[in-house]
Amino acid sequence: MRYVIKLSYDGTDFCGWQHQPNGNSVQDALENAIERLFGERARAVGSGRTDAGVHALAQVAHFDCEKVLPFERVVGGLNAYLPRTVRVSEARATTDGFDARKSAKRKTYMYLMYRGAPLPVFNDRALCVGNAFDTDAANTALNAVVGTHDFATFKAAGSNAKTSVRTVYDAHVEDDGAIIKFFITADGFLYNMVRIIAAQTLKIARGERVDLAALIAAADRTRAKDTAPACALYLYGVEY
Amino acid sequence: MRYVIKLSYDGTDFCGWQHQPNGNSVQDALENAIERLFGERARAVGSGRTDAGVHALAQVAHFDCEKVLPFERVVGGLNAYLPRTVRVSEARATTDGFDARKSAKRKTYMYLMYRGAPLPVFNDRALCVGNAFDTDAANTALNAVVGTHDFATFKAAGSNAKTSVRTVYDAHVEDDGAIIKFFITADGFLYNMVRIIAAQTLKIARGERVDLAALIAAADRTRAKDTAPACALYLYGVEY
Repeated sequence: MRYVIKLSYDGTDFCGWQHQPNGNSVQDALENAIERLFGERARAVGSGRTDAGVHALAQVAHFDCEKVLPFERVVGGLNAYLPRTVRVSEARATTDGFDARKSAKRKTYMYLMYRGAPLPVFNDRALCVGNAFDTDAANTALNAVVGTHDFATFKAAGSNAKTSVRTVYDAHVEDDGAIIKFFITADGFLYNMVRIIAAQTLKIARGERVDLAALIAAADRTRAKDTAPACALYLYGVEY
Repeated sequence: MRYVIKLSYDGTDFCGWQHQPNGNSVQDALENAIERLFGERARAVGSGRTDAGVHALAQVAHFDCEKVLPFERVVGGLNAYLPRTVRVSEARATTDGFDARKSAKRKTYMYLMYRGAPLPVFNDRALCVGNAFDTDAANTALNAVVGTHDFATFKAAGSNAKTSVRTVYDAHVEDDGAIIKFFITADGFLYNMVRIIAAQTLKIARGERVDLAALIAAADRTRAKDTAPACALYLYGVEY
């Protein structure tokens, strides 16, 4: 039986979503909980990897187990065996045709920032941007990112994607004066793509002149070397 | 010279503001940083105590040191010696007549809640209230708290306040659909008063019939035994 679950995690103390030989991954935590609940070892396939320190408000994963359990029992049972930094909110059955990674049509990430002085309750959770942040400038510039482009400029080394062409459906900043949220939705993201675009967006919002269209056209990572810190990045949602 | 500083802290790993024989207090952390920066031991007097796990977005404290340092140097120097869970944002000189505790005219606390499924990034920082939270009911009920009353019902044992009469200037809930903030401003608060009122407000918002005016009139703590968790409470601001 193929189960699909929705889960949320605080990425601070994880080496990321994916299993690492010497790391504490969300995937390992989840697979250990599945084994304890179902009495079977299963591979948990996520909608995509998140890096060390990156959080998820709504990650989606699937796994196959022989045993059939009621869905409420799957939610409660996994949560009983998971560390409190990972919570499952939904579970249901799906068909073999569904693959949490391959079937994903759109993903949305949020990059969380805040104005003013550093607030320790936001440590490991959001980026303090002081007071000089021009949201209108950021939003105007981000129009250049929307559409189907070769995003090679915004791809970190280590990516094994076959193509660096992606379609960005939306990229915008919401700002309530205190909290600033950068949202980006695409059919998929290259390695570190959101954090590299976030770094350029930060520069623009701080008054630096950056031509995102020219950066994209260059298809050259050396033109956009900065990567915004992982701890302010959230996997916000996955659409199928 | 009397210095007054504004500071913020993540209360999770502290035993509270005040020094405890076997605890890690914010006051100790601050006094240790003052000693390292100024080369003098000084008592840091806060606007009030916060309990273990309670956060501060804007605590105010004063201390006396012989050495005169530029204010930017006080901010930067204290932050260099403080753990990252405590950040000083402002420092200035004040007169001997100013006392961070006694001179405080109004204090505001915020109780932070959120709708929906538990999100681990909010662990130790906010209370998950699920989906049944009636903000209008809470706001209507909270009118009974505003004004000058004997708040003995909302005073935990261990309080050594001379009188339990306090003036509440404002008590209301703000709700954006996802994040719910309960704000309360008063000339002072009894021990656990905010958390006890927050617990009753939660009951009301969840549909329980609670008469706050009758509870206040009873002047009897046994009528309001619940105390909302500390980790969702923030000292939000102090006015002088």
